Amino acid sequence: MTTARFMHLNAFLMTTGHHEASWRLPESDPHAGTDLAHFTHLARLAETGRMDSVFFADSPGLQGDVGRRPSGILDPTMLLAALAAATEHIGLIATASTTYNDPFNLARRFASLDHLSGGRAGWNIVTTANVEAARNFGLETQPTHHDRYERAAEFVDVTRKLWDSWTDDAVLGDKQAGVWAESSRVRPINHHGWHYRIGGPLNTPRPPQGHPVLVQAGSSTEGKDFAADHAEAIFTAQQTLSHAQTFYSDVKTRISHTGRDPERVKILPGVVPVIGSTEAEARQVAEQLDELIVTKHAHTQLARTLRRHPDELPLDRPLPADLPTEDDIEGAKSRYSLIVTLAREENLTVRELIGRLGGGRGHRTFTGTPEQVADTLQHWFTTGAADGFNIMPAVLPSGLQAFVEHVIPLLQQRGLFRTDYTGTTLREHYDLSQPGNQYEHEHAAIA
Amino acid sequence: MTTARFMHLNAFLMTTGHHEASWRLPESDPHAGTDLAHFTHLARLAETGRMDSVFFADSPGLQGDVGRRPSGILDPTMLLAALAAATEHIGLIATASTTYNDPFNLARRFASLDHLSGGRAGWNIVTTANVEAARNFGLETQPTHHDRYERAAEFVDVTRKLWDSWTDDAVLGDKQAGVWAESSRVRPINHHGWHYRIGGPLNTPRPPQGHPVLVQAGSSTEGKDFAADHAEAIFTAQQTLSHAQTFYSDVKTRISHTGRDPERVKILPGVVPVIGSTEAEARQVAEQLDELIVTKHAHTQLARTLRRHPDELPLDRPLPADLPTEDDIEGAKSRYSLIVTLAREENLTVRELIGRLGGGRGHRTFTGTPEQVADTLQHWFTTGAADGFNIMPAVLPSGLQAFVEHVIPLLQQRGLFRTDYTGTTLREHYDLSQPGNQYEHEHAAIA
Repeated sequence: MTTARFMHLNAFLMTTGHHEASWRLPESDPHAGTDLAHFTHLARLAETGRMDSVFFADSPGLQGDVGRRPSGILDPTMLLAALAAATEHIGLIATASTTYNDPFNLARRFASLDHLSGGRAGWNIVTTANVEAARNFGLETQPTHHDRYERAAEFVDVTRKLWDSWTDDAVLGDKQAGVWAESSRVRPINHHGWHYRIGGPLNTPRPPQGHPVLVQAGSSTEGKDFAADHAEAIFTAQQTLSHAQTFYSDVKTRISHTGRDPERVKILPGVVPVIGSTEAEARQVAEQLDELIVTKHAHTQLARTLRRHPDELPLDRPLPADLPTEDDIEGAKSRYSLIVTLAREENLTVRELIGRLGGGRGHRTFTGTPEQVADTLQHWFTTGAADGFNIMPAVLPSGLQAFVEHVIPLLQQRGLFRTDYTGTTLREHYDLSQPGNQYEHEHAAIA
Repeated sequence: MTTARFMHLNAFLMTTGHHEASWRLPESDPHAGTDLAHFTHLARLAETGRMDSVFFADSPGLQGDVGRRPSGILDPTMLLAALAAATEHIGLIATASTTYNDPFNLARRFASLDHLSGGRAGWNIVTTANVEAARNFGLETQPTHHDRYERAAEFVDVTRKLWDSWTDDAVLGDKQAGVWAESSRVRPINHHGWHYRIGGPLNTPRPPQGHPVLVQAGSSTEGKDFAADHAEAIFTAQQTLSHAQTFYSDVKTRISHTGRDPERVKILPGVVPVIGSTEAEARQVAEQLDELIVTKHAHTQLARTLRRHPDELPLDRPLPADLPTEDDIEGAKSRYSLIVTLAREENLTVRELIGRLGGGRGHRTFTGTPEQVADTLQHWFTTGAADGFNIMPAVLPSGLQAFVEHVIPLLQQRGLFRTDYTGTTLREHYDLSQPGNQYEHEHAAIA
């Protein structure tokens, strides 16, 4: 593997930053989460840095204590539609749930985002692991992990069919003959599956990218197999280089087994850069943030993740020995294992674990000078651990600004990152192929 | 009623215009329907004219022949999110179906649009009357008219609860104390109804307008009662002044009976202005458009609306005597009656009827000079037929441009329309009150 290839950089945006206490800093606006101007500024910053994309996570249910941190957020597909109008180049990736959406409506929303942005849309496919969401959709408990993934596979299948229900050249616009579209190039899909029965066609022409880019972030065994089948970019949380290398080679092998080209699937571990002009200054930024964590909130949140009452997790003791195994966990399985493994491998107390999670909720924090951060990214990128990174600034906008102004130029100087956009679509940024139309022959046969 | 009140003007935007042959004109771009720049231009034109709002219709299913006219369109909530970023003042109203959406997701989308636009969102509530949509959501046939309205009432009820699940002042942003939101001001809704069971709270703070403005366009008896209960603005198709006056007084009376203030519900008949510098020029524009109608397409469409085979509707004969009554029609009931009544009252042949419907699909076409169009609007506005108008240009952008440049200044000179925006929200433009929070007392009691 050589450094001739470019790394891919996604800006994972979360209101005032990924550190749970970021909103308490003097620079932060607690109302930023509903302020389009804030997100426009962030997206344009990322675009200035020639980053591949911006990304918003999501879950259709309010989790945890609203006292703790900014937690009511906008629908990310809507927010990205607004950002499509405010940016020109950068890719726009939104999380959306296959468990709590209708395929027809969601296929259309992403097709719409792709048209609005001239081919810059991406969909991070999640199955949504929380009971609060289930209760917003008529259920008392959430479907099992297996059921959610089974439904997700059919959901993606039918979504692709809907995107293919118009050929790229269906709209003739033949004014002379009075024929707007060629009807043989727009076809029903007549999908009759286990979970969905959908006639089609979609009522939106085929997206400019054919299909918006499919992203996936599940790291359980089922999640990895799903990613191998469907994903074109994979977000993952990895705490150490060696874990990241194992994950990378595992997933690339799984992709090969499906017959897909592993190079056309980009693996992007999440990193939380905390940058200072000196190492000491960077540490000071990190410590200032950690001091602002409200221990009670973070403790409650950790207990929730570990399925325990806070009283069962004394702050100055290590984690209890008898925690459930990943197999017993319904949802966010791999995140659960990552947290338990981190605590056990480094023999952390609950209080220390909270400090470690405050910055990145399980993602790797890189604290240091721009050179140190660039060195680490380069090392991971060139040793089989990553095709790029999911950049999760601890504080926004300042953390993204520091990364764009100080780290990206170093990566560019080293020939590791683009100095300008060479394509116009998200697929082009990520060096992905344009999907063919699965109905190509049928469409042709009719015509 | 005096002219001291201002009329309200909504720009109903439809790709290349409301005339079904508009896309065939030399000025029209057949690909305009997926082009954000086209819609940005239109929304800014309407904003230049100080119009109250722009509006997009929608149905989650592709109807009729795609050869006929631009028919695959973007999800209007997504398009309006993009336009929120590209405009500053104008209201943004999208149609969305209560039959084919989840209340949680839709409540959140409109809350998001309201936040993104600083309080400019409106929702045109429809129950969706077509079997193509039903087939995209696992159904073989569409639910009955009555079932759809029953579901719509509960849908609107639960949506309002979700919007009220956060108080306006829930987000404290208290950095010192480390409390982002006051948890007693964010509450579950625990809705257990006939059709929906939803826990809540919404995961988006209360919209700036409290609730986005609710718009309705059903004109059947059930539709009018629904409007009387819920709507703040009503779009309606009325062919004659006397029909419009009857509708206006009927609906205002129904609103009084619900205990609501009829002045706070605006009734806006649809009008298709076709404008020329002389009456003859205006007629020429209209005739040029009508000549471009492909009779076969329009004939098929009319037959579909009348539930007949085209062969049963010879072009040069009047409508058959034995058409079904409105009671037998499931959906778009009042539109059906309007078309049949128009044909019968004016003794039109099928061919003549097609010509009359080409421009406005049942909406009133006003062909003439700017003065003539302004006179007619003024007459309807001052004789108890309208609180304003749903402006449906036959051709876009030119028809909207002509209206904004030549008709609106006349209305302004006559003191019938604002010369500048005096508010920032859609509610303020339409002179509507801000809804209180239904949980105000519970929230207070908890706190």
